[in-house]
Parts: sequence; structure tokens; C-alpha cells
Amino acid sequence: MRLTPKELLFLFAIGAAGGLVGDAGNVQSGVTRYLDDSVPFIWESALWFPLLVGLATAATGELRLRLAPPRPGFDLRQGLGAIAAVVGIYALTSIVGDDGTESVALLAALAVLTACVLADGRAAIICGLAAAIGGPLAEIAIVELEWSEYSASNDRLLGVALWLIPLYFAFGVAVARIAEVLVARRQPSRS
Amino acid sequence: MRLTPKELLFLFAIGAAGGLVGDAGNVQSGVTRYLDDSVPFIWESALWFPLLVGLATAATGELRLRLAPPRPGFDLRQGLGAIAAVVGIYALTSIVGDDGTESVALLAALAVLTACVLADGRAAIICGLAAAIGGPLAEIAIVELEWSEYSASNDRLLGVALWLIPLYFAFGVAVARIAEVLVARRQPSRS
Amino acid sequence: MRLTPKELLFLFAIGAAGGLVGDAGNVQSGVTRYLDDSVPFIWESALWFPLLVGLATAATGELRLRLAPPRPGFDLRQGLGAIAAVVGIYALTSIVGDDGTESVALLAALAVLTACVLADGRAAIICGLAAAIGGPLAEIAIVELEWSEYSASNDRLLGVALWLIPLYFAFGVAVARIAEVLVARRQPSRS
Repeated sequence: MRLTPKELLFLFAIGAAGGLVGDAGNVQSGVTRYLDDSVPFIWESALWFPLLVGLATAATGELRLRLAPPRPGFDLRQGLGAIAAVVGIYALTSIVGDDGTESVALLAALAVLTACVLADGRAAIICGLAAAIGGPLAEIAIVELEWSEYSASNDRLLGVALWLIPLYFAFGVAVARIAEVLVARRQPSRS
Repeated sequence: MRLTPKELLFLFAIGAAGGLVGDAGNVQSGVTRYLDDSVPFIWESALWFPLLVGLATAATGELRLRLAPPRPGFDLRQGLGAIAAVVGIYALTSIVGDDGTESVALLAALAVLTACVLADGRAAIICGLAAAIGGPLAEIAIVELEWSEYSASNDRLLGVALWLIPLYFAFGVAVARIAEVLVARRQPSRS
Repeated sequence: MRLTPKELLFLFAIGAAGGLVGDAGNVQSGVTRYLDDSVPFIWESALWFPLLVGLATAATGELRLRLAPPRPGFDLRQGLGAIAAVVGIYALTSIVGDDGTESVALLAALAVLTACVLADGRAAIICGLAAAIGGPLAEIAIVELEWSEYSASNDRLLGVALWLIPLYFAFGVAVARIAEVLVARRQPSRS
């Protein structure tokens, strides 16, 4: 492991917390609905949801560090900004109302802007692409298992929302940046 | 006073103007409603509203300069960007439709991003927190006085909108930056 | 010509492609409607629409280079970010729902932020203003010719949407930046 247990736990925690906030928005606005009420719930989410998002966050951070050395220089603003960008984009998926052309275009534009600001190059983009492929596939599996479903106006990607692709891409790129900031924090630069 | 009368007047003017634009959006979209029609109105706002926002803007700028020395270097882009950020976030409060989880999460994310770009540290954050506490308290008092009211889908914070907290936080941080730019403008850097 | 044929073709192509995406959003969300079905269509757009946007993009890029020397230093992020900013703002015009005060204020704020990040000064601003005047005038002419129309809630500017002004301003400023990046790409800086 390139990340310490403490750093992995931190990534798990912010991933789980961010997942809970975003999912509460999706559930309350009717974008998604849990079909299996037999599992324990936290806020609006089935317990397994924040766990999965937390694990994906820790795994993506670890992936980033195995791909290339992180940039030096601790910058709290970049870390906080990365978290805020993903929380904001996730919240926006509950507001746009559907996964039509304009919604997907807006969210894709925001995902690209997130990468333009945060990505260091190939390594961050790979993290973004891995999340953009793996995330929607996992959600399609969850829908196939009938654990949850997307609303009829948000199911253009094999039953899940098409905007999951830009949402997860932004997630992957942002987590890559957070992992860099965590490593830089071990020895803060004196600049 | 750390700001000159002219600078205070400028802050008052842009605060009042920005307040009029944002409030017109809130009133026209039905987010807020004035209950007392006996006072004079400007555009959609009771006269006292832009006056209060203008005073709060000047006071927040003065507070910023008493907390810490401003950063040197005149940067018109930072000043214009700070104004645009708050006008945009204020306008968005009329568009999101309610103060539910997704709306508050989106506006909180934008407020954090605003701080990540504009804040110099402790001094700007204190301005943001002062506004985030004082602003909603003032609005709660106004609603209690029955001068105006928030719609039923925008009243989760003791009768006012929960998103007032991130809106005012962004306002405080942005005004702190504008105050810095105003001081730097006295002697533009030659860089 | 300050731009090579290949660069002009590239600007034409991204302009036409961006126009198709944005227009598909406008048509699908009911913001605009084509009245003349006798012409060929691509996706949701009459053939002449992406052609006009492509030509305007190439012309704006050429205008930028005739106004002032471009900044050196190739920065792919600035070019991609400029494209994403305009695609995102264009998509947002389909989501805000009307051209009321709050919608125009939000889009104007985003146009100003785009300029604060991308513009190099006078030359980019002139490109933005030229587009902000020429674009809406062309659209008013198209509506007068009864080739297309704007919905009743998006026609406050002589029959077209008032938010066309900030949309085209952002377009002009972004294309100016893309033209700079294209020239800088001829001889990438080694920084």
C-alpha cells in the first residue's frame, strides 16, 4: 500500500460521507429509489451504498499513487476544492431533472473543467476513466439485482443515468488529487 | 476606518446593486415575498433591502481590513470574479427550487469553491463565518417582523431558506477579497 | 489569414460540434423550435445552424489574432477548459427554464467568470463583445425570417432569449483563448 492505513481510512470516510449526501439528494428528488427495504439504512441510503463509495474512494486513491509519483506541495485548497467539486456535481444530478442531452452535456462540461483544474495528466485521467467505467457498471449490476432503480427519466444507460459517466469521471480525477494532497501533507512544503 | 469613504461607498453601491438583482430573482421566482407594501420599492425590493445589503457589504469589507493586512497586487479579475461568483450563487438560489438536501449541497459546494479560489486564509474565513451567522439571523428577524416571508419549500431554517448559510458565507469571503483588491488598487503593483 | 487552413478547419469543426450539442439541448427542452422542415437536419438542428456556428467560430478566432499577438505557452487545459465552459453554459440555457432575471443573472455571472479566467485583456473582450452583439442580431434575423422561434418564456430580446447575450459573450472570449492555444501549439513551450 502506498497510502497509510490512516490515509485510506480518511479517504473511505470522506467517500462514504459524500456518498450519503449525494444519495440523499438523489433519493429525495426521486432520481433513485431503493427497492430492498430489508437492509439497514443510514439517512436515505441502504448501508451498503456508503460502504461501496468509501471503498471505491480508498481504492481510487491507492490506484493514483501506484500509477505515478504525486505532485509535491501541500495545498489544502486543492483538496477541499476537489471534495466540493464532486459533492456539487453529485448534487446537480438531483437538480437537472433527467439525463437528457442538456443535462449530460452540462455534467460532462463540469467533469472536463474539474479535470482541467485538478488533473496532473495521465495518472489522474486513468483514475477518472477507471471510475467512469467501473462506477456505472457497478450501478447497472445493482439495478439488475433489483436493489435499487433509477427513475424513468434517468435510465438511458442500460437502466441507470447516462450522467453517471461524467459524475464518476469527476470523482476519479478528484480522488486522485486528494490522494496527492494527502501524501504532500506528510511533509508540508515550506513555500 | 481602514477603507476610504470612496471605497466604502463603492462597496455599498455594488452590494446594493447585487442585492437588487438577486432579490428580483427571488421575488420573481416566488422564493420570497414582501408582506408590507407600505414602504417604497425599487425594482422588486423594499427600499430597506438594498440599503441593508449595501451596509453589510461595506461593513464586511472594513472588517476584513481590521483582521489582517490585505494581499498586495491589484488584480481586476479577482475583484470582478468575486462579484460574479456571489451574483451567480444568489441567482442560483432562485433556480434550484427549494432548500432541500441537493440544493443546499450544491450551494455549499459552490461556497467552498469560492473560498478555495478567493480566500487568503483566516481573515477571509472569519468574514465568511460572520456573514453566514449574521445574515441568516437578520433575515430570521425580518421574517419574524412579518416584513417578508420565504415560500413553504424554502423555509427550513426557522422560516428562512437553509441555503442562506452558504450564500452569505460566499458573500463574506467574496467581499473580503474585493476589499483587498480595492486597497491594492491604491498603488497598483507593476508586475 | 493569421490562422492556417488546418487551424481554421479545426475551429469550424469544434464550433459546429458544440453548436449541435447545445442546439439539441435547446430543441429537446423546447427552448427553440425549427419552423422550416424543408431543409436537411443533423441530429436536432437544421443543417445551416452548425455551419453558421462553425463559421462564426473560425471568424472569431481569426479576429482575435488580428487584434493582438497571442500569449505564448501551449496549455491544453486552457483550450479544453474554454470548450467545456461554453458547452456547459450553452447546456445550462436549456435547464434554467426561461430568460427571467435569475436565469440571465446566473448566465451573465458565468460569462464574466469565463472572461476572468480566460481573457488576456482588450483583445479577448472585443471578441466577446463582437459575438455578444453579432450573435443575437443573427438570431433575431433568423426568427424574423421564420426559420425558427424561441418559446414564449425565452423571447425577451426582440423574440430571442435575453441570455443569448452572455452566452455569445462567453463564446467569443473562449474562442479567442482557443485561437491563442492553437498558435502556441505550433511551437510548444518547453516549460
